[in-house]
Amino acid sequence: MTAPVEKAEESAGAQMHALVERLYPLCRSITGDGVRATLDIVGEYLPLQVHEVPTGTQVLDWTVPQEWNIRDAYIADATGHRVVDFAASSLHVLGYSVPVSATMPLAELREHLHTLPEQPDLVPYRTSYYKPEWGFCLAQETLDALPDGDYEVCVDSTLADGHLTYAEHVVPGQVADEVIVSCHVCHPSLANDNLAGIAVAVFLARALAERNPYYTYRFIFAPGTIGAITWLARNRERVHTVKHGLVLACAGDRGDLTYKQSRRGDAEIDRVLRHVLAASERPHRITEFTPYGYDERQYCSPGFDLGVGSLSRTPYAGYPEYHTSADNPDFVSPEAMADTLAVCREACTVLDGNRRYVNLSPYGEPQLGRRGLYDALGGRSDTKDAQLAMLWVLNLSDGEHSLLDVTERSGLPFGAVAAAADALLGAGLLKE
Amino acid sequence: MTAPVEKAEESAGAQMHALVERLYPLCRSITGDGVRATLDIVGEYLPLQVHEVPTGTQVLDWTVPQEWNIRDAYIADATGHRVVDFAASSLHVLGYSVPVSATMPLAELREHLHTLPEQPDLVPYRTSYYKPEWGFCLAQETLDALPDGDYEVCVDSTLADGHLTYAEHVVPGQVADEVIVSCHVCHPSLANDNLAGIAVAVFLARALAERNPYYTYRFIFAPGTIGAITWLARNRERVHTVKHGLVLACAGDRGDLTYKQSRRGDAEIDRVLRHVLAASERPHRITEFTPYGYDERQYCSPGFDLGVGSLSRTPYAGYPEYHTSADNPDFVSPEAMADTLAVCREACTVLDGNRRYVNLSPYGEPQLGRRGLYDALGGRSDTKDAQLAMLWVLNLSDGEHSLLDVTERSGLPFGAVAAAADALLGAGLLKE
Amino acid sequence: MTAPVEKAEESAGAQMHALVERLYPLCRSITGDGVRATLDIVGEYLPLQVHEVPTGTQVLDWTVPQEWNIRDAYIADATGHRVVDFAASSLHVLGYSVPVSATMPLAELREHLHTLPEQPDLVPYRTSYYKPEWGFCLAQETLDALPDGDYEVCVDSTLADGHLTYAEHVVPGQVADEVIVSCHVCHPSLANDNLAGIAVAVFLARALAERNPYYTYRFIFAPGTIGAITWLARNRERVHTVKHGLVLACAGDRGDLTYKQSRRGDAEIDRVLRHVLAASERPHRITEFTPYGYDERQYCSPGFDLGVGSLSRTPYAGYPEYHTSADNPDFVSPEAMADTLAVCREACTVLDGNRRYVNLSPYGEPQLGRRGLYDALGGRSDTKDAQLAMLWVLNLSDGEHSLLDVTERSGLPFGAVAAAADALLGAGLLKE
Repeated sequence: MTAPVEKAEESAGAQMHALVERLYPLCRSITGDGVRATLDIVGEYLPLQVHEVPTGTQVLDWTVPQEWNIRDAYIADATGHRVVDFAASSLHVLGYSVPVSATMPLAELREHLHTLPEQPDLVPYRTSYYKPEWGFCLAQETLDALPDGDYEVCVDSTLADGHLTYAEHVVPGQVADEVIVSCHVCHPSLANDNLAGIAVAVFLARALAERNPYYTYRFIFAPGTIGAITWLARNRERVHTVKHGLVLACAGDRGDLTYKQSRRGDAEIDRVLRHVLAASERPHRITEFTPYGYDERQYCSPGFDLGVGSLSRTPYAGYPEYHTSADNPDFVSPEAMADTLAVCREACTVLDGNRRYVNLSPYGEPQLGRRGLYDALGGRSDTKDAQLAMLWVLNLSDGEHSLLDVTERSGLPFGAVAAAADALLGAGLLKE
Repeated sequence: MTAPVEKAEESAGAQMHALVERLYPLCRSITGDGVRATLDIVGEYLPLQVHEVPTGTQVLDWTVPQEWNIRDAYIADATGHRVVDFAASSLHVLGYSVPVSATMPLAELREHLHTLPEQPDLVPYRTSYYKPEWGFCLAQETLDALPDGDYEVCVDSTLADGHLTYAEHVVPGQVADEVIVSCHVCHPSLANDNLAGIAVAVFLARALAERNPYYTYRFIFAPGTIGAITWLARNRERVHTVKHGLVLACAGDRGDLTYKQSRRGDAEIDRVLRHVLAASERPHRITEFTPYGYDERQYCSPGFDLGVGSLSRTPYAGYPEYHTSADNPDFVSPEAMADTLAVCREACTVLDGNRRYVNLSPYGEPQLGRRGLYDALGGRSDTKDAQLAMLWVLNLSDGEHSLLDVTERSGLPFGAVAAAADALLGAGLLKE
Repeated sequence: MTAPVEKAEESAGAQMHALVERLYPLCRSITGDGVRATLDIVGEYLPLQVHEVPTGTQVLDWTVPQEWNIRDAYIADATGHRVVDFAASSLHVLGYSVPVSATMPLAELREHLHTLPEQPDLVPYRTSYYKPEWGFCLAQETLDALPDGDYEVCVDSTLADGHLTYAEHVVPGQVADEVIVSCHVCHPSLANDNLAGIAVAVFLARALAERNPYYTYRFIFAPGTIGAITWLARNRERVHTVKHGLVLACAGDRGDLTYKQSRRGDAEIDRVLRHVLAASERPHRITEFTPYGYDERQYCSPGFDLGVGSLSRTPYAGYPEYHTSADNPDFVSPEAMADTLAVCREACTVLDGNRRYVNLSPYGEPQLGRRGLYDALGGRSDTKDAQLAMLWVLNLSDGEHSLLDVTERSGLPFGAVAAAADALLGAGLLKE
């Protein structure tokens, strides 16, 4: 059985990497056509419901900003040679840069240039969403090589009333209670942050559609912060149906997996991820909630306090390539994305299967033998997991303990415990 | 004082071992005359109330089975020589074996033979209570030495309507609330499992009778599983009077003591045994509850959820002699049984003494000096345990903390704390 | 800024040591003029409200004893030479010694002599408050050097109806809820126990008066046990206003600081002291409550159960100089007292600042940027503590978490968290 599964994962890994490469060149931001183009490509993999929210819409404490679009941007020297060119990388322009067209000496231009002096060969990622600015990002080495003199600067952008765009994809479940999987789609040419997260979400949605999941899974592709806030504002009346959630970010680098717990710290999603990661014996990190990072900040704000954690490989700001031109498609690997996907799938399996039952024969053990559920030969000391799992499920099924409780207390695999519960349900010994 | 106590324990150890040796040859099972003969011998030590429950009686989810009795069983070779003989050991016959009288070739016989290939010189213990079977248990070496050919097999047993037999012995206490001490009496010629447990229970009952215990102690001698289930079924209306309990099993081997906690894990019996074992500085193990093992499975089923733990030396299936002919009287030692008994006695002392009091002078410390309870000379730095114990009892006696709480929080011996409580009660400073 | 603060602490250390030296020669006890003279000197530093409680007054379970005063005491040899002389040290007389004037042989005198055979050069501190006795304390070496023969003994003391004396100093706060700081004033010539505690209390009160503290701070200077009991008896109706408290004792030796937790163990004062000591990275000890030690015994008796801990350097009976003539002004150091004072001041800062707030914009993050509270330039990975602190305060301010909770969970300094709360209050994003 291992080989086909591994083959499928290998194939998913390659497909996810191909998706990252397709999405990489687009210039995304918190609004604009780069997001729409991204969602168009995602829509080839998954049917999406795309939402357009007008500039000026009040969303919680925020207001949807003007829409930003950009066609070209460059710095050219006196000979007309473009020494910094948006066409080479979307990172070169300050995100949400206002338009500019001017010629100025290097000394004056410097105030608008962003570099990483300690990583002189890399281009940083910088934005100025809420303060009107123009600017360029470039390698320190590039800057150091520029002779004094006048330069032509051009940002051919538009900042105008328009829309904020986000999308949803829903995998229907047996119940209306929802699990949200959220990933930000606002970062420009950065592969791990967050094209890998988008790719894992896409392939997770496809995998879930092949099962008949217990929960309804809602995938949210939205710009960071303002997008999640917009989603929360527009779903405020129904947010109580969200029982669990996962923010996917930095999902493709070669580091170990990191699960950042929800604000609650003991939400079911926290227990599930801790269990799945520990049981898998992968090296991994579990970290406490902090109100900094990705959109778990919004989902876990105290008014909502949802059970939403965040799954990454190397987390937020934890690698030198973070928010630089070195976070390119080579920085993420098919194997790492396949590994993230595998953990997500297993987590959904446990989450979906983590029911609570009531033992209908709670006084003493029920006689499993006459129901064909117990070995007839007594006295042996090598009792099987399947039998132990039934005894554990019966012993703890008092309506309070979940199957994950049974799993953790028994030390048995979740699958064995879930199978035991199914057998006992079949024998009429449990009810939900 | 040490010498007489040690002498008494030594003597109890020898007497318990003698009881094990007397009981050893009997062929016990979950019903039948072997159990009755066992209870007859126990009855020489303790007055017993013996219960006979008819075949077919519904007990919780189970039904009392037919009674099994056996007179003879053997495998004889062509010359009439008994190569396997029940008279040599009750282990040789599969427990609850249906009668058989036939001659058959070895190849056909093999399907009814049970051996331990990895322990080729030992005879295993096997049963088939609820599926009609016949069979023999023998050493792999014996089997290997049998030439091909025809063998005469005979199991001269009866399986017929009759009774399930169990017994109780009650040591009356100051209150009707009960502590149960339960041990299984269904295993044939196995010394540690559970003749040692029976012997310790017998001598614990005798020791308690010499005190005036706080709780009423009920000793239950019943076949495993079906016996405990029968007892629970017949005592369902009064089981709420059972406040604490202990299952005794594997009580005589030379390994360290093991206390397996109740399902609750924080029941008073759990705290008492943890304290007694830790305070005694014996090497020991505390293990979590599992729904496998001895009759704690039934007492701790979720409908009852009694505060019943289990005390063993090397636990269930934890030694190579387990459920084999090597679990003979040499495998258990007088010293080990005396040690188990000593811990049981101390546990009963703590359990009986573990009262909750209310300090009647809770505002500030009461003036102990004018009541003759405190040294007159002040300034010394070597305050005595007796005075510290009084201060601790006064400080924590708010009706919520028990003397065991005081003991654990103060680090003082339980005896000093209990004596302090007595002194303060005498001075009118506490009420129960 | 460091230098002036260090200078101020150095100066406070020297002043505290000077106070210890002034108080050292006085013969204090649980009543009498030695206490009054002590409070007179303290009154030069702080305005005090002095209370005189008549002999015979019922206080909780106790009665205010007769007042003890002493003018002279000595043992003289046959030549009239004083071999033990109260004028040399107040320790030489048994505290509360009844008057005596007699001549007797050494053998008879011995029954009234207290020495420390294992510390033969030191004079012990001994009392007999509630049993009428007379006696002398002296070095074992002194005793050993005394030739047999008759000695004149004289204790020129009075034990008569009078008063018990204690004093209070109040630093008014923004709220009527109180923090008590209590230190015993009954020990004679012992520097660490408790003149150092008195000195630290005096300088803490002076430091608090220079702020506008949130809580009202009440300093209690009272004899041990009977004094605290008297204070509690006379304040029983208003003791509910005492929210936190600290007993100061052994506050000046050169050992590490020790905080002994309140009976509750999780009182706010316990958390504050644990935090302040841990955050300061001083070596220190945190110990559990015991009902032995200083007046925390009374404040933490179960009827009151106040959140009162105790701060010492080397604790109660933990150093060889304890309750001996070696606990002299050389045994305490200005630096150690300054260090104790610094921790007390920091603890008061945290206690006073440890408010709970409610985030008025709890759904999603409020937009800090438009309020000038957040950097406009996005994408950087070096977010500042001030911004993180605001996010943490917003995320946890649900009316349940205090700023100390935020501090501990975020790992940020308390000062940064408190400053963030102030900024958010200023922006109208929080309410108390």
